[in-house]
Amino acid sequence: MRFIIKASVIIIIVLVSSGIVLAQFAKPEDAITYRKSVMQVIKKHFGSMAGVVKGKMPYDKASFSADAKVVAMMSTLPWEAALVPGSTKGNTTLTDKALNDRDGFLAAAKRFEDASRELTVAAESGDIGVIKKQFGATAETCGGCHKPYRRK
Amino acid sequence: MRFIIKASVIIIIVLVSSGIVLAQFAKPEDAITYRKSVMQVIKKHFGSMAGVVKGKMPYDKASFSADAKVVAMMSTLPWEAALVPGSTKGNTTLTDKALNDRDGFLAAAKRFEDASRELTVAAESGDIGVIKKQFGATAETCGGCHKPYRRK
Repeated sequence: MRFIIKASVIIIIVLVSSGIVLAQFAKPEDAITYRKSVMQVIKKHFGSMAGVVKGKMPYDKASFSADAKVVAMMSTLPWEAALVPGSTKGNTTLTDKALNDRDGFLAAAKRFEDASRELTVAAESGDIGVIKKQFGATAETCGGCHKPYRRK
Repeated sequence: MRFIIKASVIIIIVLVSSGIVLAQFAKPEDAITYRKSVMQVIKKHFGSMAGVVKGKMPYDKASFSADAKVVAMMSTLPWEAALVPGSTKGNTTLTDKALNDRDGFLAAAKRFEDASRELTVAAESGDIGVIKKQFGATAETCGGCHKPYRRK
């Protein structure tokens, strides 16, 4: 019993420190709802920035920076939910390939996280040239997951 | 023509500075999807913190703090979307009262924002007594909108 408790504690510590926390989603559908919600929030704020970069909306430093910060925070959230077994069935476009190629999937996710974080730095510079370049680099990382791991 | 452009610029500046930005949502349904997504993200991270506060999940300072930061950021986002005309119809529980009592609604929303921001400070203290108290105070502010402005 003591051994089981100790072993469980060690497993939890390893999982927490590796960024994967157990029992966050009671059902696979909850994981789907959560990650889709995160993606919707990303879509909105990334879309706002895209509008500015494409010249369809006026550039406002504070609001662009706020959008970049939201995307950067959101970029860190949905990956655990994506790796919940059973959550590639139902109302989702995620394929089994993500679970079968976990390292590849997480590496692509990390490239998006890193690029998004760099976009907040570019946004703070207020230099629209720097911003456009980093926005483009960030947008390119979307395909890192969307191409190999998403159903059309 | 010059006058129209000048007037438009002034209107945009006034709207931006009052926190309401035009053309963020092409359709009322987009506003509904967005604010529901934000609420789902809040639900997940508030729920994780509730699990800790109720003693169902172990307390981990870093992860509690991360949850608090997500909620604090999310707490600032959905109000503009809530005030989009026509977005109290369809797949939503928001009532017309929010639009008709805009000041009351935004004041209640601000109480949640402020409490959530204070919760990040409490979380950083690492003092579970302080955290529990501020978590309770934050949870209480949810009703500020959910009771008067939400359909059952």
